[in-house]
Amino acid sequence: MKFSELVEKLNSEIAGQSLTQNPALNPDIYGVAAVDAAPSGTLSYIEGLKFASFVQCSDASALILPLDESLQIQATEQGKAWISVANPRLVFAEAIALFYRPYQPQPQIHPTAVIDRSAQIGSEVYIGPHVVIQAGVTIGNRVCLHPNVVIYPEVKIGDRSILHANCTIHERTQIGCDCVIHSGAVIGSEGFGFVPTASGWVKMEQSGITVLEDSVEVGCNSTIDRPSVGETRIGKATKLDNLVHIGHGCTVGQNCAFAGHVGLAGGVTVGNGVLLAGQVGIANQVKVGDRAIVTAQSGVHSDIQPGDIVSGSPALANRLYLKTCAVYKRLPELYQSLKALERRFKDS
Amino acid sequence: MKFSELVEKLNSEIAGQSLTQNPALNPDIYGVAAVDAAPSGTLSYIEGLKFASFVQCSDASALILPLDESLQIQATEQGKAWISVANPRLVFAEAIALFYRPYQPQPQIHPTAVIDRSAQIGSEVYIGPHVVIQAGVTIGNRVCLHPNVVIYPEVKIGDRSILHANCTIHERTQIGCDCVIHSGAVIGSEGFGFVPTASGWVKMEQSGITVLEDSVEVGCNSTIDRPSVGETRIGKATKLDNLVHIGHGCTVGQNCAFAGHVGLAGGVTVGNGVLLAGQVGIANQVKVGDRAIVTAQSGVHSDIQPGDIVSGSPALANRLYLKTCAVYKRLPELYQSLKALERRFKDS
Amino acid sequence: MKFSELVEKLNSEIAGQSLTQNPALNPDIYGVAAVDAAPSGTLSYIEGLKFASFVQCSDASALILPLDESLQIQATEQGKAWISVANPRLVFAEAIALFYRPYQPQPQIHPTAVIDRSAQIGSEVYIGPHVVIQAGVTIGNRVCLHPNVVIYPEVKIGDRSILHANCTIHERTQIGCDCVIHSGAVIGSEGFGFVPTASGWVKMEQSGITVLEDSVEVGCNSTIDRPSVGETRIGKATKLDNLVHIGHGCTVGQNCAFAGHVGLAGGVTVGNGVLLAGQVGIANQVKVGDRAIVTAQSGVHSDIQPGDIVSGSPALANRLYLKTCAVYKRLPELYQSLKALERRFKDS
Repeated sequence: MKFSELVEKLNSEIAGQSLTQNPALNPDIYGVAAVDAAPSGTLSYIEGLKFASFVQCSDASALILPLDESLQIQATEQGKAWISVANPRLVFAEAIALFYRPYQPQPQIHPTAVIDRSAQIGSEVYIGPHVVIQAGVTIGNRVCLHPNVVIYPEVKIGDRSILHANCTIHERTQIGCDCVIHSGAVIGSEGFGFVPTASGWVKMEQSGITVLEDSVEVGCNSTIDRPSVGETRIGKATKLDNLVHIGHGCTVGQNCAFAGHVGLAGGVTVGNGVLLAGQVGIANQVKVGDRAIVTAQSGVHSDIQPGDIVSGSPALANRLYLKTCAVYKRLPELYQSLKALERRFKDS
Repeated sequence: MKFSELVEKLNSEIAGQSLTQNPALNPDIYGVAAVDAAPSGTLSYIEGLKFASFVQCSDASALILPLDESLQIQATEQGKAWISVANPRLVFAEAIALFYRPYQPQPQIHPTAVIDRSAQIGSEVYIGPHVVIQAGVTIGNRVCLHPNVVIYPEVKIGDRSILHANCTIHERTQIGCDCVIHSGAVIGSEGFGFVPTASGWVKMEQSGITVLEDSVEVGCNSTIDRPSVGETRIGKATKLDNLVHIGHGCTVGQNCAFAGHVGLAGGVTVGNGVLLAGQVGIANQVKVGDRAIVTAQSGVHSDIQPGDIVSGSPALANRLYLKTCAVYKRLPELYQSLKALERRFKDS
Repeated sequence: MKFSELVEKLNSEIAGQSLTQNPALNPDIYGVAAVDAAPSGTLSYIEGLKFASFVQCSDASALILPLDESLQIQATEQGKAWISVANPRLVFAEAIALFYRPYQPQPQIHPTAVIDRSAQIGSEVYIGPHVVIQAGVTIGNRVCLHPNVVIYPEVKIGDRSILHANCTIHERTQIGCDCVIHSGAVIGSEGFGFVPTASGWVKMEQSGITVLEDSVEVGCNSTIDRPSVGETRIGKATKLDNLVHIGHGCTVGQNCAFAGHVGLAGGVTVGNGVLLAGQVGIANQVKVGDRAIVTAQSGVHSDIQPGDIVSGSPALANRLYLKTCAVYKRLPELYQSLKALERRFKDS
């Protein structure tokens, strides 16, 4: 595909994005690649000025640049075709989609799938080998259940949702439309509810349900428990990475993203647009406000206000945390200074 | 069900618990709910004074209260039926069980299960679709193996244990009676045993076994490895949450509870009644005494005495930790104070 | 087996290792055991001087000792047969292998496996019950696919690799020879790639692949994602423990070992021979040099030079970290000292 054709296809999909391009060069582009590994004939992108040096050394034949004139000049000097846009990563995502056809099995109900006769199955579904669907389940249209998925009774799965291999959906879970549940994830399992008594743990039945709203993604081997009463809820378009644990009775808002190994204890409330970086933990009953950001490995024990950025374990305001970290590194030196002062005082 | 009938049923099961009630009100109760989401017609509970304000604003028709006279007066003023008990959460757990019938499949051996002819299967078992049981396995009475469970050779599973979908039990593992293994968990897998040599890692065969005593629960996608020699053992009635990792050769006592993402390295010894909060890590060969508590995200590198509470990474006595955290927040200020003192000294 | 025969078999396999032995004693040895739980008739080992006291109290009939004369004398006094070698743990690993025959199913393709007709299957393979192999997959000779493994299209698996139960290999993944993928692991799944826009997350297609070189091991329920473009690569003989997460586009060198719950964000580059202890997290795009060591629970946000040892979150040079930890414990005391100084100054 000529670069100009490619740009035209992109352009049609980036309405409103300002876009300039270098008309002098129009190479053939056969694929997309990361800028540090791009062979000749590929299109790549420069996310920001941090990666600017790659304009010089990449073998890519074409680049998606940020809106930066000096990068445009460099690219032209290097004989590279380019376009320059406000959000290069977004446009690169579109470029990938032009070259890549994701694996999508054809509609089929495999004869080895075991489907309870009371289940309601939509049209044009794929139900792979060895899938198990128990009583009272409702599966929407164009749903894709990859091999060895197990669906417990009375689950509802909305249109076009994709459940990858070996994942398990527990009784009464409600999954919206356009969700993606990655391999090995477990949704709607029993919350960790035990009451301590003199004679040991007494199990609290987990009679609640788990609800995933539309367009939620749940990463591989992540787990989302249901509560004793009420529901655990993940809001629309929220994305969870791999090995995330969401405890019973949590409420997570819309458009959040939680990175790998994040853990939410019971009854946590998370607003909309919240970002939790890798290995963050949030304690029981804590409330996290809209658009808050929690940086990697932080431990949150008290409520976070909307828009706040917090860091550390226990978590502090990020600005304070950066200062405490800077001093922390110098603690041995601080200690020596203090002891020196004390000695001088003793002498005085 | 009338509130009075409900209380009678509860009462029969809380022998010895002191219990008072408000006889004036006797509403119909159709279900149970969390206090902050309870509609009229439901029973809820107030765990402690922290939640006291919900007595005023909850729509629940009846409440399980702690032994607190002022809450009783408030509840009566709000027109709510109530009982007042020593452990409201425990009584609420019983109330849930009155209204909730957990999903329990009928005894059946599904024709798609693949069971080695040498396996011994107890009576009244449920063996779901696509379960695989290898040679020499012994399955007790009334065991429930949900779909796609895989049992490697020579495993023993005690009476009434429940194994949820997609979990894997490795060779020679012994699981006691009344255990619950949640979906995706892996028990008795090879320990991470490699010996470093000049020519790379040499694998140490993991010839030991994993033993779960009676009434153990293992959370979704948790993993418990077997050791090179000897055994990994989880004591009676110990409960593990989701995504917990127990390394090879660990010995965990009875009645412990480990929260999500807890990791035990190799050869750790944990006493009875130990609580490990979320994302705690315990290093190789460490011993944790009975009834110790390790707070969230702590990293334990040295032995913990019975009853101790430790926090932080590396873990300190909790009382010290609370003080160090308080100072840690003020490190930038401390640094300024120290520098100010030094300047004044220089002048003097 | 007589101890002398046993030693002969070991010796044949430890070419070049200096080895002395006690010829006076030649007990019958029927098995191997951990030194603190070894009954009479077993062989055990003393890894180093830390475990020296076990020479006195173990019931083992024979011991593998380090090259330490005083331990040899003690063992002789206790009436124990022994050999003394440079690397007792390595020799013990060989001794285990003499007594232990790991479970290895016979070659067979189980009739319940669902194998696409376009898949190429090598000779002497084991393909267990309910395995699913999609279109265009290539399986080498003597590969072992345990029950319920799911292989997406166009995957390649090299000779003698073992995939344990319930694991999932995603489209186009390449697995080398002699790899071991433990139960529930997920390889080649979609990276966590979403571009934030004003109208929410836009999914970036993950068109890349995941490559495991020869002799890689991946622990139970660990996950390795594929990137948007290019590849995620795990180098030869690298070993990953359970519940590890490797983000999209990471490159991990050879002979590394990552302990449980380690998480690598996207695009991390790790050299050869790197050790990451439990619950370590590495941030996006960070580079970790050859033979670096990161201690447990550390959080790495900037590049690590070859051979460096780092600790803490955020990670510091280990030598500095040990000092900061020592002062950290004394922060309350430091604070008091500083305040006392300030008070005295105010008076002066």
